[in-house]
Amino acid sequence: MAGAPRSLAVLGGSPAFATELPVGQMYFPPWEAYEEAFRALFDREYYTNHGPMAREAEARLAEVLDVEHALCVTNATIGLMMAAKALDLRGRVITPAFTFVATAQALTWAGLEPVFCDVSRTTHQMTPDLVAPLLDDSITAIHPVNLWGGTCGPSALEALARAGGVHLYFDSAQAFGCRTEGRPVGSFGALEVFSFHATKILGTGEGACITTNDGDLAERLRNIRSSYDIRSRVAVPVTTNGRFSEAQAVLCLLSLDEYEGRRRHNISIRDVYRAGLADVPGIDWCEPSGVETSNEQYAVCEVHAEVFAISRNVLLQSLKAEGVNVRRYFYPGVHRVPPYTDGGEAPSLPNTDHLCDTVLQLPLGALVTPRDADRIVELINEIHAGAEAIAHRLRS
Amino acid sequence: MAGAPRSLAVLGGSPAFATELPVGQMYFPPWEAYEEAFRALFDREYYTNHGPMAREAEARLAEVLDVEHALCVTNATIGLMMAAKALDLRGRVITPAFTFVATAQALTWAGLEPVFCDVSRTTHQMTPDLVAPLLDDSITAIHPVNLWGGTCGPSALEALARAGGVHLYFDSAQAFGCRTEGRPVGSFGALEVFSFHATKILGTGEGACITTNDGDLAERLRNIRSSYDIRSRVAVPVTTNGRFSEAQAVLCLLSLDEYEGRRRHNISIRDVYRAGLADVPGIDWCEPSGVETSNEQYAVCEVHAEVFAISRNVLLQSLKAEGVNVRRYFYPGVHRVPPYTDGGEAPSLPNTDHLCDTVLQLPLGALVTPRDADRIVELINEIHAGAEAIAHRLRS
Repeated sequence: MAGAPRSLAVLGGSPAFATELPVGQMYFPPWEAYEEAFRALFDREYYTNHGPMAREAEARLAEVLDVEHALCVTNATIGLMMAAKALDLRGRVITPAFTFVATAQALTWAGLEPVFCDVSRTTHQMTPDLVAPLLDDSITAIHPVNLWGGTCGPSALEALARAGGVHLYFDSAQAFGCRTEGRPVGSFGALEVFSFHATKILGTGEGACITTNDGDLAERLRNIRSSYDIRSRVAVPVTTNGRFSEAQAVLCLLSLDEYEGRRRHNISIRDVYRAGLADVPGIDWCEPSGVETSNEQYAVCEVHAEVFAISRNVLLQSLKAEGVNVRRYFYPGVHRVPPYTDGGEAPSLPNTDHLCDTVLQLPLGALVTPRDADRIVELINEIHAGAEAIAHRLRS
Repeated sequence: MAGAPRSLAVLGGSPAFATELPVGQMYFPPWEAYEEAFRALFDREYYTNHGPMAREAEARLAEVLDVEHALCVTNATIGLMMAAKALDLRGRVITPAFTFVATAQALTWAGLEPVFCDVSRTTHQMTPDLVAPLLDDSITAIHPVNLWGGTCGPSALEALARAGGVHLYFDSAQAFGCRTEGRPVGSFGALEVFSFHATKILGTGEGACITTNDGDLAERLRNIRSSYDIRSRVAVPVTTNGRFSEAQAVLCLLSLDEYEGRRRHNISIRDVYRAGLADVPGIDWCEPSGVETSNEQYAVCEVHAEVFAISRNVLLQSLKAEGVNVRRYFYPGVHRVPPYTDGGEAPSLPNTDHLCDTVLQLPLGALVTPRDADRIVELINEIHAGAEAIAHRLRS
């Protein structure tokens, strides 16, 4: 039997990977560093309420992101909710539907109505051309998302927002560490919100930060976050608990030390995918757009069924059977999810709908090696070669 | 100079305590147990998204609280926001103003209007007699707070809510571990929300849980909390990120093991205060009301200036000068804080206003010993004796 091709798992073979490979980042600091930091935390007996580690994390983040104010918060969803309230927005907000659902849900919590904007079929990002026709008197803000370790080209949107007299603030959940237009992402628009979820390159388990150069806005955000670290009593429409614990802060500081190493590891995996997938018919590898430097946080491709001979969903099913936990980001589009649709007609977002049907996220991060990526490329080729057998199997 | 009375710090003497004594609980698990748990967490490389520790914490909490569903969430503010959305409330909600501001703020985030109810001058709790006159067609729910390790007598409020055809759910942020009417607090009304903030006897740094016996409501809460651990696709008006991390869950499990020891330590401190303050004129020690068993989480007294010869605020200032970080809970009343007042006439809540002017929280918890409590009682007596000198000093 030596040399006989292994049967694909979707056709009844055993999985290529015994342990499931995750899509996310899942980077952790070394145990020794973490233990030392936590021992110090125990000695201080100070675990929350804007403690010394939280303050240090904020100072380091402000420096790294070259911005006046970095406010660490519980998670990016809470951060986005706080941002909308700090800006005191009322009315409708232009935002993409090709994003994680929290982008829109945060608007809903803040009493705002999202107006969904399509994205570029090439870059997957919102563009000024797509936003401009949606601007009218009911619009209070533009709220773009910087996707895939790339950006939507913030300064062109800044010009559009200025001309339209509306607020602009960014969901940069995926963009920590990226550079564009000569500086780090973090100081565009009125504010930006980064995610430090475990699936991000700078992970704190759960966590996030809000960055701004506007001192008044920073004060309002501090006041909304909690009663700790308020420097002056500014009026805010509502407050919440958006505090960042010392445990989160320790993870943040250790992750900052490791950031560049993580990025290089991601590059080594992405290099394998890029080279390996270049010759696979119907698989288009996507590079981050609108950045000089990416955080290299995602491995994104599009699956074109008419050329690959297999749909994105069947490729997903076939890879999952092999223990490769690929994901559809984002599916369905937010414009097709309650409460944004009542099941009736969704707004026409042809590029968003197309991408929701074709985009696939491949594993990278701490738990993935370049060798794993190589094996995944092989599997994609094997699945392409087995298209007929798979189609037959799934029909029966 | 031996035997000469020490000068009070407020009169220029040195503080009685070199290190400030906090009001809160600040209990931490032993480092060895925490280290072992965190080592396991690192081995698993699973830090969030409803992991094994979070699931175990929920199972233990449901057992301890004798309730079908215990859902761990990020913090109690987020839990209260989620609760209002899960109940799909619209309109006005009766709630006390003598509470932490998050009780009302969570209603505001959920698009609801608080109708502030006065509390008993004796127990500090909301009562059916005070709620009943506020019930009209605009009211959608009653939202009492169980204060000071006591309760507001939940079954009488259940009867009132049933008769009035309105929802009832409890802010039990301060009531973890309490028992009333033959069972643990946690299964009264539609749901209850507990806080696990570091200042609570069961602390997880930040954290909280929502308890309910209503399976449909639990499903809606899971769906609102995040896309993880949804067992069925139930429609919810909005979602958020209310996830409980594995770090929080580890702290929760270790704290559960230690709960009874912490409670006994608090009892030993409260015993000193109770006995020592009994003979101080104008200081009324407050016992938790409406419980068979209290969590012994607070040390509360009322300061009556006309008898004590010094106001609550001057006693607070004098004790703070000694390094005793006493607090005014709650000051000002929530009905006197924006956005609930525009600076104009606040609703008439005479008992609430009285308590906001007289109640003082004394230190207890992990960082306080019975000997410290003894010294604090001495200081209160010395301050009483020095009333004239202090008044003179503060005038000049």
